[in-house]
Amino acid sequence: MVVVDFKTLVINAKYASKKLAGIPCSIKDTALLKIAENLDLNRDKILKANSADLESAKQLVETGKLSQSIYNRLKLDENKMRDMIQGIVDICELDDPIGKVLMQRSLDTGLILTKVSCPIGVLGIIFEARPDVISQISALAIKSSNAVILKGGKESYNTNKTIMEIIQQALASVDEFPENVLTQIFTREDVAEMLKQDEYIDLIIPRGGNSLVKFVKENTKIPVLGHADGICHIFVDDSADFEKAKNIIIDAKTQYPSACNSVETLLIHRNFLKKDELIKTIKEEGVEVIFNPESWHKEYSDKILAVKVVSALEEAIDHINKYSSGHTESIITENRENAEIFMNTIDSAGVYHNVSTRFADGFRYGFGAEVGISTNKTHARGPVGLEGLTIYKYKLQGNGNIVKDYVDGKKKFNHKDLI
Amino acid sequence: MVVVDFKTLVINAKYASKKLAGIPCSIKDTALLKIAENLDLNRDKILKANSADLESAKQLVETGKLSQSIYNRLKLDENKMRDMIQGIVDICELDDPIGKVLMQRSLDTGLILTKVSCPIGVLGIIFEARPDVISQISALAIKSSNAVILKGGKESYNTNKTIMEIIQQALASVDEFPENVLTQIFTREDVAEMLKQDEYIDLIIPRGGNSLVKFVKENTKIPVLGHADGICHIFVDDSADFEKAKNIIIDAKTQYPSACNSVETLLIHRNFLKKDELIKTIKEEGVEVIFNPESWHKEYSDKILAVKVVSALEEAIDHINKYSSGHTESIITENRENAEIFMNTIDSAGVYHNVSTRFADGFRYGFGAEVGISTNKTHARGPVGLEGLTIYKYKLQGNGNIVKDYVDGKKKFNHKDLI
Repeated sequence: MVVVDFKTLVINAKYASKKLAGIPCSIKDTALLKIAENLDLNRDKILKANSADLESAKQLVETGKLSQSIYNRLKLDENKMRDMIQGIVDICELDDPIGKVLMQRSLDTGLILTKVSCPIGVLGIIFEARPDVISQISALAIKSSNAVILKGGKESYNTNKTIMEIIQQALASVDEFPENVLTQIFTREDVAEMLKQDEYIDLIIPRGGNSLVKFVKENTKIPVLGHADGICHIFVDDSADFEKAKNIIIDAKTQYPSACNSVETLLIHRNFLKKDELIKTIKEEGVEVIFNPESWHKEYSDKILAVKVVSALEEAIDHINKYSSGHTESIITENRENAEIFMNTIDSAGVYHNVSTRFADGFRYGFGAEVGISTNKTHARGPVGLEGLTIYKYKLQGNGNIVKDYVDGKKKFNHKDLI
Repeated sequence: MVVVDFKTLVINAKYASKKLAGIPCSIKDTALLKIAENLDLNRDKILKANSADLESAKQLVETGKLSQSIYNRLKLDENKMRDMIQGIVDICELDDPIGKVLMQRSLDTGLILTKVSCPIGVLGIIFEARPDVISQISALAIKSSNAVILKGGKESYNTNKTIMEIIQQALASVDEFPENVLTQIFTREDVAEMLKQDEYIDLIIPRGGNSLVKFVKENTKIPVLGHADGICHIFVDDSADFEKAKNIIIDAKTQYPSACNSVETLLIHRNFLKKDELIKTIKEEGVEVIFNPESWHKEYSDKILAVKVVSALEEAIDHINKYSSGHTESIITENRENAEIFMNTIDSAGVYHNVSTRFADGFRYGFGAEVGISTNKTHARGPVGLEGLTIYKYKLQGNGNIVKDYVDGKKKFNHKDLI
């Protein structure tokens, strides 16, 4: 790797992003298919690099410095490789998110305003252990015409480096595809430098645990897209159907307890008749139930569930709006009106009715691919697909139009939506 | 004024924002009309408060501490009052930006995902001298169901305070309208406190000069919506029509030179035959033309225009992408292909063809009202109307659906857009 100073690196990325914004979708798609092809041709090379990472990781697991689950996520096999390559083809097949006409309006005869989707510019993406993420992020960036600076987990150093080399090789073979669209960085010092580049980097996306996200938010002026916590709630209303409540809670707590969209707190209406039976059933699934948690802000990421009995829908709503991380909350009720109040008044990215919180996911929502889940209140919220990697610009086309004519009253605006 | 600590103030605002999110549009509209009515009833009181501000300001003008133009903007008269009141009625008449269905998709039989617009939460808005802005911001916040903490210019202290009292009085008379939706703060210390409240405030909008915006961006972790500079460009292509070029440049430079959408730099293609005549005409309008500016980053806000001759469209694009503040740029050309390349490759909020840059404005775009103009690359860009004060949430409605069924392959997603 040629060492360049960080300023040069981000300036190059910015320049690449401007070039990328102007190329047609066909070139982006050619690049994506070329990447898929080149990864397929180099499976052995990738698995060999992955073996080296696994070797080092094994020692860390044996000395208790790395968890078995991180080790498992680090390990690539033929199935994961196949999914990784297919994932790129899938992104290639999605509609181009760029150049979409979002609004078109005639301001006056011959003066046409068009709101068009366009790329954000330069993204900085930091992700943890899973090495298959690097090709997914690269593909999402290319499809959305954004340049990206990537930092992967140190445990997957060799795998990430090898995958990125194979991707870069593929891109270099595509005529008209700009240089420096993808840049990989490796060290914590690089991350610290990256977070300072608010002049050149437009959005930072940390994909990883709470501490990573908090660190990023604390240390940058660049907008950050993501979520630190996933403290999701389920409220069982007095009119809830027992079977639905039971199945949904068990799914939301046990199907994948460490997922961010798993439930952490269960609120039960005091008039729900089968309260005790519900708690008993949940416990029988191996879930530890806590009635007096140290904090309602806690994300257990395990088969542990905090439970509170509330006296009214409003109390449940207030509790959730106070303690939720704004990720996803669900009400179990047969009362449609209560469901509506719950969904309208809860201030979270996902507000569900008679559904497991685990549905909060870009693939399940039909976005085809997901950059992550956002609990932001601006830009993009909830599962973020390609659309979340775009912004828009206004094109205005006229024939010599000047503002003075309108200020002087010689002409009048006559706004009319065309689309 | 009852002095409360800042934490209580923002917690109250947050609580108000959650209440406000749940009320129907009819109550918001009633509140807006009530405000308009109460302002109308209290014209004399407002003018009296304004006189007190003008008295103090006059002394500052005489001692050279305040400019005459700021004094003029500070001064309310019957016409400005009428416009101010009408502005609130106009905002009342706009469509409700909240509760709009942005997307609806069936994920599987009976599992319906709906993307609905909703308020952001708590806004912090800082604005300078013009006292008529306070009622406009209040109205925009109410219509978009956001709570807002407002800080006006110190020169208009009495006017702002009186207008806000009249607004609060109106709101208190509307049943079901929550308390603490609008909170006024007065001191620099309050602003410093406000900028720290990233846990409770969701978006900061500074409306004012470059130094205010820069100060805010440097001193908060809360997302900031706005623009520091307005360094707009016009490029006269080789095939430009002389009359259009002349009229547009004069309009963009002289119609209101201190506006952020005025042109600062003119790029002329070296093959444009009437170059010299164009420069001569511009000079005749009293515009000072500078061929070798100290910096291409300078916003003159005056009848001064930096001019550069370029050898190709690409050079103009590169210059603009390098030096522009991302506000608004226009190409004057009879070549449609060049216009398309310019508009697609320039990375600015507004990209125009044969139109004056001065059209970059929410009212001219037909947004009805404007919170300001953003050069952000995330959330909202260009002139920001009510829509820019919203985000969205995902509602998911089912009938006991769990993720396990899909993971186990018992059920399959069958994504189908309903809207």
